[in-house]
Amino acid sequence: MGDYKNEKTSDLGASDTGPVVLEEDGNSSIQTAETLLRLIPVGLCVAALVLMIKDSEDNEYGSLSYSNITAFRFLVQVNGILAGYSLLSAAFTAVPRPMTMPRAWTFFLLDQVSTYLILAAGAVATEVAFLAYKGDVAVTWSEACGTYGHFCRQATTSIIITFLVVICYILLSLISSYRLFSKFDAPAGYRNKGIEIVDFEMNRVDS
Amino acid sequence: MGDYKNEKTSDLGASDTGPVVLEEDGNSSIQTAETLLRLIPVGLCVAALVLMIKDSEDNEYGSLSYSNITAFRFLVQVNGILAGYSLLSAAFTAVPRPMTMPRAWTFFLLDQVSTYLILAAGAVATEVAFLAYKGDVAVTWSEACGTYGHFCRQATTSIIITFLVVICYILLSLISSYRLFSKFDAPAGYRNKGIEIVDFEMNRVDS
Repeated sequence: MGDYKNEKTSDLGASDTGPVVLEEDGNSSIQTAETLLRLIPVGLCVAALVLMIKDSEDNEYGSLSYSNITAFRFLVQVNGILAGYSLLSAAFTAVPRPMTMPRAWTFFLLDQVSTYLILAAGAVATEVAFLAYKGDVAVTWSEACGTYGHFCRQATTSIIITFLVVICYILLSLISSYRLFSKFDAPAGYRNKGIEIVDFEMNRVDS
Repeated sequence: MGDYKNEKTSDLGASDTGPVVLEEDGNSSIQTAETLLRLIPVGLCVAALVLMIKDSEDNEYGSLSYSNITAFRFLVQVNGILAGYSLLSAAFTAVPRPMTMPRAWTFFLLDQVSTYLILAAGAVATEVAFLAYKGDVAVTWSEACGTYGHFCRQATTSIIITFLVVICYILLSLISSYRLFSKFDAPAGYRNKGIEIVDFEMNRVDS
């Protein structure tokens, strides 16, 4: 519908040439913030991932590694996926380019899925760490952190870092939904139509 | 917003008097969908909550109740909160009224928080149910569902219902972010300015 206006006066907004692109107004500052917000999780995810992967403890009672606990393996996998996605998307947003609707949709959907994934991974790992610290007498699950104190502390650090990633991604999905939905006014059509009619009448009067 | 076109020359839009209101165009169908999407979780949350609260099992090995497990208590609390919020917000959206910016922001933020809460509660309860079914030998957590089969099945049903609520809330937070951010074009201003300038020139020509 951007092309629509162009046919009339060819000047009602530079943002209407080619495919629908976003206004450039407050875009550069948002773009910088977004690129930063996508770079930060790269480091955080790698840190959380490495901390968790290197998390194992051997002692006289036995040995415990992150790979023995499903929730911690899930945390490692999700952090790995998000490190990759964050890096790719940061590289993509760093270069100024028109944000078309398919791109806005892609970012929006991937950001949403990422946010839900990392939140679920963090929550699940927190619960297991909580059980490891406190145990659950009724289910006969004994606490494990008395025996594996170092293991538990390192896992907790990794989980805390994961929640920093969660915060970044909550902000990122806010930005990408802003970017997507702030374009949705145009298809609703009242503004363009308004211009159209007025424009038509002007041409008539002018000729 | 529809009014906007009609009043083109007389005054520049009801949307400029008083608080910014949303277009009514595709709004009624979205509003119906939204009210429905807010009513469904009321029933689902209450079902998940009741199922979980009534979930306890006594047998020769001992007794187990939802209240013994932190994750399940959290699930009950979050389902209770969301049942209340869903009912209130459904009642609010059922009545057609102008959606002002503060209202759009309130819905957006509460929907986001609700979605994250119910997702976290569902994920955490799933992990505990998983541990109850499978156990974790390395941490010496034995499986509990061999002994408390009925308890586990009822908890699983409650968790599945909770994930239906998650789906509803993912859609709801999509709708409320669409509603909030689709207004963000207007303050950016280029479209309104376009209309304004043309309108001014028309008045000049007409007189």
